[in-house]
Amino acid sequence: MSHYSIENIGPVDSWHALEGQHGMNGKLFLEGLLGSENVGVSVNGLAPGGSSPFWHLHAQLEEVYIFLGGEGKMALGDEVIDVTTGSVVRVAPNTMMAVHANADSPTDLRFVCTRAGAASLRDVGDDAEITHDPFPWS
Amino acid sequence: MSHYSIENIGPVDSWHALEGQHGMNGKLFLEGLLGSENVGVSVNGLAPGGSSPFWHLHAQLEEVYIFLGGEGKMALGDEVIDVTTGSVVRVAPNTMMAVHANADSPTDLRFVCTRAGAASLRDVGDDAEITHDPFPWS
Repeated sequence: MSHYSIENIGPVDSWHALEGQHGMNGKLFLEGLLGSENVGVSVNGLAPGGSSPFWHLHAQLEEVYIFLGGEGKMALGDEVIDVTTGSVVRVAPNTMMAVHANADSPTDLRFVCTRAGAASLRDVGDDAEITHDPFPWS
Repeated sequence: MSHYSIENIGPVDSWHALEGQHGMNGKLFLEGLLGSENVGVSVNGLAPGGSSPFWHLHAQLEEVYIFLGGEGKMALGDEVIDVTTGSVVRVAPNTMMAVHANADSPTDLRFVCTRAGAASLRDVGDDAEITHDPFPWS
């Protein structure tokens, strides 16, 4: 593998139109695009009023969210926190989470989500657990 | 440690004023701010004409850069690539690298750099090697 790879995903205000996996538009995982082995990254543009398609946790991976624009909420276990431009959030493993863009958000909720564990992504494999429980904002 | 932590670092167009470590203004490492254990992240606003203070590589950590605005270059070993809004770059371990914001960039070169290895950040420790060799744009 080369010592680097480069792609272009367009500006932040176009991320809502990215075609992602699992029919989740507005979410693109960069590790497939770039071939990264340890760093998992998704870029996200969630339309006002939109939510994650389900709750999820990671058994081994830690996540760090960087919110670049818009207004919304994160559910983290039993807690709901407000997130907006400039919010940065670390989520520990084994924490059920979901993201919501407020219906009156002035723009898409734009964020980068990066995740990693103390092993390569390949060794960790799919450590996600999902549920379709109701969200606290619905 | 709590299952999450949250801080606010302000909008992307203010990142040039963030006070970082080692006298590197315009670069803030979030792992200290948030207490992340596996995900290393810096947010960066590099003024037009500015460069990394030195070349660096990581012996064990992989890095993924997400460019959010501005125009510049990355040096990756012997190669120099152009980077601009939307560029995403994966850099393998043991690759000497440096970043430059073009003097005529319309804004600061704004980017997120995330890094991780197949071990916790604490176990990896400081795996950086730096040099003050001349840059290819100087």
